[in-house]
Amino acid sequence: MKQWMKNVREVEPYVPGEQPQVRDVTKLNTNENPYPPAPGVLAAISAVDEDRLRRYPDPDCRGLIRALADYYHVGEDQVFVGVGSDDVLATAFMTFFNGNDPILFPDISYAFYEVWAEMMRIPFRKILLGEDFRLKAEDYVQPNGGIVFPNPNAPTSILEPVSFVEKIAAANPGSVVIADEAYIDFGGESALPLIQKYDNLLVTQTFSKSRALAGMRIGFAIGDPALISAMMAVRNSYNSYTMNQTALDAGIAAIEDDEYFRGRLADIMDTRADAVKRLGALGFSGPDPMANFLFVQHESVPAVKIFEALRARHIYVRYFAKPRIDNYLRITIGTPAQMERLYTALEEILKENR
Amino acid sequence: MKQWMKNVREVEPYVPGEQPQVRDVTKLNTNENPYPPAPGVLAAISAVDEDRLRRYPDPDCRGLIRALADYYHVGEDQVFVGVGSDDVLATAFMTFFNGNDPILFPDISYAFYEVWAEMMRIPFRKILLGEDFRLKAEDYVQPNGGIVFPNPNAPTSILEPVSFVEKIAAANPGSVVIADEAYIDFGGESALPLIQKYDNLLVTQTFSKSRALAGMRIGFAIGDPALISAMMAVRNSYNSYTMNQTALDAGIAAIEDDEYFRGRLADIMDTRADAVKRLGALGFSGPDPMANFLFVQHESVPAVKIFEALRARHIYVRYFAKPRIDNYLRITIGTPAQMERLYTALEEILKENR
Repeated sequence: MKQWMKNVREVEPYVPGEQPQVRDVTKLNTNENPYPPAPGVLAAISAVDEDRLRRYPDPDCRGLIRALADYYHVGEDQVFVGVGSDDVLATAFMTFFNGNDPILFPDISYAFYEVWAEMMRIPFRKILLGEDFRLKAEDYVQPNGGIVFPNPNAPTSILEPVSFVEKIAAANPGSVVIADEAYIDFGGESALPLIQKYDNLLVTQTFSKSRALAGMRIGFAIGDPALISAMMAVRNSYNSYTMNQTALDAGIAAIEDDEYFRGRLADIMDTRADAVKRLGALGFSGPDPMANFLFVQHESVPAVKIFEALRARHIYVRYFAKPRIDNYLRITIGTPAQMERLYTALEEILKENR
Repeated sequence: MKQWMKNVREVEPYVPGEQPQVRDVTKLNTNENPYPPAPGVLAAISAVDEDRLRRYPDPDCRGLIRALADYYHVGEDQVFVGVGSDDVLATAFMTFFNGNDPILFPDISYAFYEVWAEMMRIPFRKILLGEDFRLKAEDYVQPNGGIVFPNPNAPTSILEPVSFVEKIAAANPGSVVIADEAYIDFGGESALPLIQKYDNLLVTQTFSKSRALAGMRIGFAIGDPALISAMMAVRNSYNSYTMNQTALDAGIAAIEDDEYFRGRLADIMDTRADAVKRLGALGFSGPDPMANFLFVQHESVPAVKIFEALRARHIYVRYFAKPRIDNYLRITIGTPAQMERLYTALEEILKENR
């Protein structure tokens, strides 16, 4: 061991979904949008001029924040933007979760919550989901230093109603409650209107899924101005300039084209409805999907076997070797053509494993 | 006070240099490069395609890391990239500075070191610079949990020789020593070759100054593979995808055009040599500048007075209301035309204050 290692922070990093570097892959493993971003986005990126490259970007991200505030009918002082919702959530953890009571989050959930808590040395307690994978509001009424959950949840794709979020926010005025709505645009009802009533509720969303901009790294949080300014202070103590010029411009362009946005969401939800039927006919079942992915198990063939057989055919889905969910596959909704490739492959694989 | 505020992290954020939103400003306050980035950069950004926007970027940033490794003749496992050198340095602080002994840095230095230490609750000790603003290697031989210093130092612009960095790295095998070389390309000799000999030495640099890409947020660190992998683990526990597609592409294009890079550096160093003479003739003096800025005081007129008079003329320089340096101005080297505007304004201001 090198001498300086004694002071190194020991962490168990998050392992993101595989980003295969080979071509001709059907990539249904990281919940990316199968459609391109709004046409204005490419134009906005290409329009960046040299002067704005050599200068620091606006640290206050005013243009993008204004666009989001207008779109969601909130004040500019109620919006925070960051480098994907991971950056936004990590900043929120660092800002709000400094108490001695454990923070609470579901045991089956976005894996990064535990990674952040471990890294920032935040005490935490994982709340077991029921057998049906549903979150129960009453579980979140106990002493805590903060609460965070995805809605819809990942990787289950189950949506809880806005009343669920409200119960938790109302029951915990002394804690910041984070509703991580990364997948809310795919048919869910956002808890955003509640932020006007509950000054402890922070809603986070991302441009990576519904707005097809995973490559640009844009996420945001909306909440009470006091929540936002506390996050800004922490961000400005870490890195004042996180959003580069092209990300700021791309974000604005994506927000501006609402017709395109709604059109592609509808396409994905149509494909999802079809996928439920097609996979059902093949013997798959799972919770009612309210995100841009399905969470399914097969009636007879183990998930890991299907996962590997798909991978051998260059079709990537996500498999989690974790208790309770190790017989499920998380399958991102692709284009209809990609899904056909999936169905065909699954038919073959199931035949081989009959 | 809102109830949830009890667990909020209290911080004193860094205040970056003003980014005036008005036009026709002569902006010599944030050490940006007055020249555009290499022509290939704009082309690379415009060439980003929709598929790469909708997909997550390569979390390992392989293309950019390969370009940097080739350029600096190091292994790919010796390079870390981040969202500006602030992100790189903050990640290094979080990774390496977890001991009980205080970390050491100069009292007059990059203001963010103290901000990061405060926010991450890292004990620190500020080492007083001598009257001549020089760093003394012997001051950094005492029990410590890590060491960081800029070289050249900011805002003094003073360069210490590579032998200075080596003395500190050699004397502290149990600590990570960070040489923050944000301004090294403007005539300084980098400590980079030392990383092969000292596994505790991390050298950080940025694309924001010498490569004219402040708007794209690209910084990097080079050091022993064990240092780099420890930083990667922390980064992957915070945000796996920090560098967006356009930043990755812009960075590669900037590295590839070395002739352009060297040409603009020479231009800036020429303008700097001229500025020393011109400002000297006006009664200004300061340390021998080895960065893309000057650190000067006037023989009779207080710095704050000059700062405000310049600002009234829409010429922005940087003034720090801090002990020992509150009679100095930090002036970024602009184009020759911008500098002429500065000299003319200074002549007027000095005349008015005679």
